[in-house]
Amino acid sequence: MTYEVIPNGHVTSPRGFLAGSVHTGVKKEKDDLVLLISETATTSAAMFTQNLAAAAPVHISREVFDEGDVRAVLVNSGNANACTGSRGEADALELQQITAEMMKMKPQQVALASTGVIGVPLPMDKIRAGIPTVIKACHAQGGPQAAQGIMTTDTIRKEMAVTTVIDGKTVTIGGMAKGSGMINPNMATMLGFITTDAAVELSYLKEAVAAVVEDTYNMITVDGDTSTNDTVMVLANGQAGNKPLNDQHPDKKKFMDALYAVNEALAISIVKDGEGATKLMEVITEGFATKTDARLAAKAVLNSNLVKTAIFGEDGNWGRIVCSLGYSGAAFQLNDVALTLANSRGESVQVLSAGLPLNYSEEKVAELLKDKKVMIRLTAASGEASARGWGCDLSYDYVKINGSYRS
Amino acid sequence: MTYEVIPNGHVTSPRGFLAGSVHTGVKKEKDDLVLLISETATTSAAMFTQNLAAAAPVHISREVFDEGDVRAVLVNSGNANACTGSRGEADALELQQITAEMMKMKPQQVALASTGVIGVPLPMDKIRAGIPTVIKACHAQGGPQAAQGIMTTDTIRKEMAVTTVIDGKTVTIGGMAKGSGMINPNMATMLGFITTDAAVELSYLKEAVAAVVEDTYNMITVDGDTSTNDTVMVLANGQAGNKPLNDQHPDKKKFMDALYAVNEALAISIVKDGEGATKLMEVITEGFATKTDARLAAKAVLNSNLVKTAIFGEDGNWGRIVCSLGYSGAAFQLNDVALTLANSRGESVQVLSAGLPLNYSEEKVAELLKDKKVMIRLTAASGEASARGWGCDLSYDYVKINGSYRS
Repeated sequence: MTYEVIPNGHVTSPRGFLAGSVHTGVKKEKDDLVLLISETATTSAAMFTQNLAAAAPVHISREVFDEGDVRAVLVNSGNANACTGSRGEADALELQQITAEMMKMKPQQVALASTGVIGVPLPMDKIRAGIPTVIKACHAQGGPQAAQGIMTTDTIRKEMAVTTVIDGKTVTIGGMAKGSGMINPNMATMLGFITTDAAVELSYLKEAVAAVVEDTYNMITVDGDTSTNDTVMVLANGQAGNKPLNDQHPDKKKFMDALYAVNEALAISIVKDGEGATKLMEVITEGFATKTDARLAAKAVLNSNLVKTAIFGEDGNWGRIVCSLGYSGAAFQLNDVALTLANSRGESVQVLSAGLPLNYSEEKVAELLKDKKVMIRLTAASGEASARGWGCDLSYDYVKINGSYRS
Repeated sequence: MTYEVIPNGHVTSPRGFLAGSVHTGVKKEKDDLVLLISETATTSAAMFTQNLAAAAPVHISREVFDEGDVRAVLVNSGNANACTGSRGEADALELQQITAEMMKMKPQQVALASTGVIGVPLPMDKIRAGIPTVIKACHAQGGPQAAQGIMTTDTIRKEMAVTTVIDGKTVTIGGMAKGSGMINPNMATMLGFITTDAAVELSYLKEAVAAVVEDTYNMITVDGDTSTNDTVMVLANGQAGNKPLNDQHPDKKKFMDALYAVNEALAISIVKDGEGATKLMEVITEGFATKTDARLAAKAVLNSNLVKTAIFGEDGNWGRIVCSLGYSGAAFQLNDVALTLANSRGESVQVLSAGLPLNYSEEKVAELLKDKKVMIRLTAASGEASARGWGCDLSYDYVKINGSYRS
């Protein structure tokens, strides 16, 4: 590996980033307003939900990222500011303006993100009053508190940082994320904030973020729903002093690997924290004609309630897996299909070859599925494309949480 | 209405149809082999699963329906003959041939359907031995037993018949279906068999069946999965003596209405019997630019686990409904969207207008959602197209049934 994981690394591990978190009263007790700041100019890129009911902060941040020099990100949790109409847009604009004024920035340098209940106007008095407080709360070790402050139904804090060497300079990439339910291949109720002190050219950063999001957040699913507020932002402030990364840079692969590592870890931590999840599912699809086919196949298996409940029940029900492959939209020949089940202990059983079940031990499969991580490897013979995705099982607790929680 | 429902009507209510059901030992105790016969020639049309892992009986029946004169349908339950490779194809062919020989028909007049466990070869000895028995068991009142014999995880028998008048002649349409889990807009683990004594021209029957399936079986969903064996077959034997129905026939609308009524009732009975279902959901989408948009919108709401669990929890969580509309792929403007919740007692509450929540009574919504049927009406302002679909809630029992049942 060309990068190193920083133990307990976080979103302010890279140089020149500050973060803070405060309680303004939107949530009952926990922190609900977070600010992430870069001390210096950045190149910045982001990906947003494709949901047509996208929330006000998404509309505003889209414009901000068109400029590509984001210095501050204000995140509130407990209220999504979605389905709030023109009032919601005005509220978001006001928060952006207040923050910019107090930070002596241009409004186009302040991005927003919100997560929480839908259809309720932001409690503006509380958040307005919180802005000066959260600005004061920001500091260079504020990452962990910030990661805590953006949580809603999350049960664990999601953060990560790695270092790599670019042009002989140590470059750090950090990140934090939130998300547990409603996570889908098209990015749902998930927020991700990535920071780096690498210098990165804007056009290259945009490409890099799009590619990494496609293979990480867009390949995780908890329940197939995508939300109104999904956002992944990457801010690069260049304080590491490397020659700006671009498509010709000799160390670009090292940067991409490190960026991927941070985002993959955050994406998997979201799935692991899936509402009611008891097991992590990893699906690997290989031998498909195109990347699109391979992704479709992996997503169909990960999204199948029948596969998810079978995994919860520790039942190696390969019929449901093949069935979901069959309707995935991916092209394949059934008599080419091989299927192997495996777990994190390295145990594996091939159950299907040439589209037909092998004479395998049901007991060994049942034993293997007791692990907390189940891997499903589906192989076709249509080409060279492969994909990887992550999901979780569907448990009683998923029904319990979502049958009673008003999101 | 231009048709009348026959009390306790069934698949052999139309003239000239016989059915029988026997136990061959594929299932432990219950009937597992069913035969449906038309005494005379038919015009026949069918729709099959689009799953690329389609089962052997689907391959065979596709060819049979290309001929369009099906006289007998052999259905076995307990084993899907799916993912059984060339052996499965040979087994299915043999069953078709044995039945044709014994019935003195051509093989191309015998269709097949199977439902049950995947990946296990058919217990041919048992089924072979059962064919003469099931032929003898067929009689003109055999509909209800046949409807019982095709069940797998179904908890209720699904059958229906109506009469209408075409050319002054009384025409009867009957049907039976099976399906409870794995029911999806693209027809899954569901079998439907429709009979009519109407005379119908083949090309018109094919159109009619395609149109009706699109609005009934393809608009129901239990868990979004589609199966390897889904099939809907319609056999018309002309014994009513009407002038053959075609696109110019003055009574064609009456026939379509009656055909729709039978299939809608069967489709809804499948959803009501959805695994672990406690409530029927009906989603009506109106004011979309195209029928495709309206259908996409309805299906997204019906397939959302978050909406399904909210309905189970009797929570009028409109945010999740709007969210699923947002990622459905249907075109709409959020500030046009209206949403009304209703139930079978005629109670209704409009919760959203112009994309914004109204000041409605949460208590009234909670009261309304206690009903066994919940209606969700979503209105856009993009055009004149509408659609209707049915689904069910997602309960603890769904997880229980599918976490432990090996299908």
